[in-house]
Amino acid sequence: MVKQPAPDTTRRSEKSRRAIYDAALALVGEVGYPKTTIEGIAARAGVGKQTIYRWWSSKAEVLMEAFLDLGEQSAREAGQESYAFPDTGDLAADLKAVLRATVDELRDPRFEVPSRALAAEGVVNEQLGRELVAKLLEPSLQLYVDRLRTAQDTGEVRQDIDPRIALELFVSPLAQRWLQHTGPIDHTYTDTLVDYALYGLAPR
Amino acid sequence: MVKQPAPDTTRRSEKSRRAIYDAALALVGEVGYPKTTIEGIAARAGVGKQTIYRWWSSKAEVLMEAFLDLGEQSAREAGQESYAFPDTGDLAADLKAVLRATVDELRDPRFEVPSRALAAEGVVNEQLGRELVAKLLEPSLQLYVDRLRTAQDTGEVRQDIDPRIALELFVSPLAQRWLQHTGPIDHTYTDTLVDYALYGLAPR
Repeated sequence: MVKQPAPDTTRRSEKSRRAIYDAALALVGEVGYPKTTIEGIAARAGVGKQTIYRWWSSKAEVLMEAFLDLGEQSAREAGQESYAFPDTGDLAADLKAVLRATVDELRDPRFEVPSRALAAEGVVNEQLGRELVAKLLEPSLQLYVDRLRTAQDTGEVRQDIDPRIALELFVSPLAQRWLQHTGPIDHTYTDTLVDYALYGLAPR
Repeated sequence: MVKQPAPDTTRRSEKSRRAIYDAALALVGEVGYPKTTIEGIAARAGVGKQTIYRWWSSKAEVLMEAFLDLGEQSAREAGQESYAFPDTGDLAADLKAVLRATVDELRDPRFEVPSRALAAEGVVNEQLGRELVAKLLEPSLQLYVDRLRTAQDTGEVRQDIDPRIALELFVSPLAQRWLQHTGPIDHTYTDTLVDYALYGLAPR
């Protein structure tokens, strides 16, 4: 559970909060998850460690909140509501637009370095891995599920398809290339994934 | 480059080689890649560290050879030639069979613990990640490429499909669920991936 700030949260404490997020992301990117500590984050943010413990109970919580905040910042910079998923009535176009934006985010160094540190720890630390999925990944994937369900209603996707599995046909290849350095990622690649997934490899 | 054993390799040195592989896999699973050392592997295998340096130049090389050997052992236990990919003339059946075997391997603790340690390091260490891909992953993926090319010749897969991207529609979802703990993996799941990929999400 993330502790909520008291209602009298001041401008000054918002500034501390942002400094803590920045420090946490920078530190985990530099030294990795195991060596990141609340003390280290506090020192780098220029706050006392009690300031951190007032809001969060663990370094995992600080880091996950820092990523959520980074995602919201990126969305604002791109002029979007956070977590908005387009529905233009053209499923292929909507999926391609979201995946193109994801490629851009994955290649953004502000995001990439700390994300890799956290993702690497999640591979060997199942409990942290499951927390990362529940808090950071699954909420985004559920937006694909919703969009695919709408497409089932309009007849663009077959009724017998499980949307939670279907989304993995285009999301997971991008994730694996990024995580494991198995190939380059760009917009042409993700467009191709969407076309292959929607229309299949077998002749029609 | 991996140094080859001299032609007079004795039974005794093969025993040392196997002990070194076992020690390397056990150690990386226990302490992670950064803390695994040639000295630690030698001590655990009960050999001098010069015995290791006679055959390999780095811990990365020892570990990659140990994984190749483990894969060959598993293939022999399953009664297969190593790296054989079935071609029964039914692409869906062949892909499902290979992916079911991969699920079993991913869930085998002998394989899982050291694999996770190495994969985690590959996420943050791009050079090691690329070596792992080139040596351990890409040779297996090329067997899917070959099988998909045959399916293009027989008309089961469209001519305009790039097989190297196409294989990711079923391989990467399994990889992501395993790496990131994003969902359960079993034979029904991989069978579903193959059906979705071949026939597509859109109505036919």
